Amino acid sequence: MSPFRASPGFTDQWRHFDLTIASGVATVTLSRPEKLNALTFDTYADLRDLLGELPHRGDVRTIVLTGRGRGFCAGGDVEEIIGALQRMAPDELLDFTRMTGAVVKALRECPLPVVAAVNGVAAGAGSVLALASDFRLLARSASFAFLFTRVGLAGADMGAAYLLPRIVGLGRATELLVLGDSIDAERAHALGLATAVVDDDALADEAATLARRLAEGPAFAYATTKSLLTRELDMSLGSAIEMEAVTQALLMRSRDHAEFYAAWSEGRRPQWTGR
Amino acid sequence: MSPFRASPGFTDQWRHFDLTIASGVATVTLSRPEKLNALTFDTYADLRDLLGELPHRGDVRTIVLTGRGRGFCAGGDVEEIIGALQRMAPDELLDFTRMTGAVVKALRECPLPVVAAVNGVAAGAGSVLALASDFRLLARSASFAFLFTRVGLAGADMGAAYLLPRIVGLGRATELLVLGDSIDAERAHALGLATAVVDDDALADEAATLARRLAEGPAFAYATTKSLLTRELDMSLGSAIEMEAVTQALLMRSRDHAEFYAAWSEGRRPQWTGR
Amino acid sequence: MSPFRASPGFTDQWRHFDLTIASGVATVTLSRPEKLNALTFDTYADLRDLLGELPHRGDVRTIVLTGRGRGFCAGGDVEEIIGALQRMAPDELLDFTRMTGAVVKALRECPLPVVAAVNGVAAGAGSVLALASDFRLLARSASFAFLFTRVGLAGADMGAAYLLPRIVGLGRATELLVLGDSIDAERAHALGLATAVVDDDALADEAATLARRLAEGPAFAYATTKSLLTRELDMSLGSAIEMEAVTQALLMRSRDHAEFYAAWSEGRRPQWTGR
Repeated sequence: MSPFRASPGFTDQWRHFDLTIASGVATVTLSRPEKLNALTFDTYADLRDLLGELPHRGDVRTIVLTGRGRGFCAGGDVEEIIGALQRMAPDELLDFTRMTGAVVKALRECPLPVVAAVNGVAAGAGSVLALASDFRLLARSASFAFLFTRVGLAGADMGAAYLLPRIVGLGRATELLVLGDSIDAERAHALGLATAVVDDDALADEAATLARRLAEGPAFAYATTKSLLTRELDMSLGSAIEMEAVTQALLMRSRDHAEFYAAWSEGRRPQWTGR
Repeated sequence: MSPFRASPGFTDQWRHFDLTIASGVATVTLSRPEKLNALTFDTYADLRDLLGELPHRGDVRTIVLTGRGRGFCAGGDVEEIIGALQRMAPDELLDFTRMTGAVVKALRECPLPVVAAVNGVAAGAGSVLALASDFRLLARSASFAFLFTRVGLAGADMGAAYLLPRIVGLGRATELLVLGDSIDAERAHALGLATAVVDDDALADEAATLARRLAEGPAFAYATTKSLLTRELDMSLGSAIEMEAVTQALLMRSRDHAEFYAAWSEGRRPQWTGR
Repeated sequence: MSPFRASPGFTDQWRHFDLTIASGVATVTLSRPEKLNALTFDTYADLRDLLGELPHRGDVRTIVLTGRGRGFCAGGDVEEIIGALQRMAPDELLDFTRMTGAVVKALRECPLPVVAAVNGVAAGAGSVLALASDFRLLARSASFAFLFTRVGLAGADMGAAYLLPRIVGLGRATELLVLGDSIDAERAHALGLATAVVDDDALADEAATLARRLAEGPAFAYATTKSLLTRELDMSLGSAIEMEAVTQALLMRSRDHAEFYAAWSEGRRPQWTGR
């Protein structure tokens, strides 16, 4: 557990998704299968707060985000979210949109690598949750749809108009965000939007394999790689090179780097501690 | 018509290209087919000013940019532009290059989505006009050539060295801008430089279909999506997320978003007003 | 030779790689084939300084970077670099990581186009040297591996976490830098990480052909294109368009642009002087 936790305890029970923690892997499963795991206000808030807690626990190295049933996440629930928004004042709406953005910010700033195991349709906010993850494993029957304009909203939601052009380029991002059309798994892979596409019934195993590899590897090296990838999108070349120089000098004093050299010298495989 | 137009009237006649406006679609056709629609000083100036007027008219939702005859646009006319530049002083040259850059700036800042229907060769400045559009539909026989270095100029012209790496990545942009080689339609599509490639004789219909879809859709949602895509290329993750939160809160009070919810509740298709 | 060289002479002999200069092409060949051209402290320092000298000589228009034997560059030598790092204090480590970053900075700021002729495995720092080059020609048997995390270090090294997302997109860069897996030539090409893939025994000729084309072409146009591509990654759209306007106005007064127009008027091929 982190020594920098101070007063707040850890939440005992997350009521708006299922959470399991085992062997360094926290698996978050959105669990309203009858609604294709559409999000409610509470799911957003729980995701935001969970992502703040997990890195402090000390027993989690990797996060897997997936959905129960046929869908990954259908986005904001039309009745429970869009319906409720109709009755809100501007300041309440901004509270809501800031909360949804905070989930994406938490995903990008979380030092743990996040694997989205996209088991079915990822639509609207659901597609942005996958977008803000580090790895996107797609079931062959899965799809993305940034369908915000289909409900009369901006295709720029929760940072989608920042992230998508940096993943697939401005031309394709414009097409996908303005039109909101569905993208099947093969096209997502061709565009660099899917890390890999696997058979539907192999998805859980593939996600677990990748998560185990990440959980058993040099966690501090992974965490700094993710952090610098996130930060350097917003930095100049000169500042980025300096930031990497300072960071890498720090890593050169890490236990895992020393362990690599010792293992190499002794002709054995390194035993990573993540420190 | 916009209430924020004040004194300037609308230009009655654009003399340096053909313009038609129908059903919310403004179609700009470069019309010097015997010169592959090479640009003159006047064409640049007219494009710059037209893009300032169209969003104020109130009867235009989408712009289509295309060329008459075999070519889309061969770039600056060698005789009428390059010849004239030989006799200009540095301050006059800068007036010219700033004007050409202003066309690209106007294309990117115009709230209306722009569809480039690339019917043939797009070379030099012609390729940058397509690059600064939101959608690029290419006829199968069309091609791009960023041939600036072929005339002894920098491959960075009118923002090409800003836009192209953000569309196809730095490696391919370096190759295309430094060498200036021709890119056929299939390769353009593979690189994400073409939204789609269609048979030559289907191009006009495909462009009209896309333009109609954009003109009949939720225009304010489209406009904010384009605006945020443009702006967020220059923003940090945190600022981008905040900008999307504020913008989306505004959209949540739009007529089109309310209309979506009403239509969904009543089991009918939404009737977009673009407001 | 540059009139802005002042006191420093040119280095007579580079001891840590082979250098040949002929017909405007400087070819740098890493030459520790028995170690797959693994880098030593001295190789980094020599590369950094060579890149500062070459643009001042006046007889070099293009740089080719390649390796002798089966490998391109295996990265930092495990014994001579990683072993030595184990015994260094933090300030010494930072001196080292800043030096390696300075090589990448020099590659990007060097006005001469750099062609990496990747003849075999490019691993760790070796893959970043290729990444910071302008063109990457890969032998069919060549491969990349950003294997930093495999030795317990951050996948962000020498600017890799800045450059790679701008070449292949954030999603693929995350996969490649976090996992450190090997990327074969075909995949590198599909991702835009290789300019072209050629048969192993054709690589030297293909690299020489491209280098000759670059050396014989309009060098000032090429140099400004490279410079603006590098700088505009860190600029806003408005500033980039203004920078291109000013730069292009300068180029319009260059000898090569005037030569293009004269040649065109006379119906002959231009004779480029690179001025």
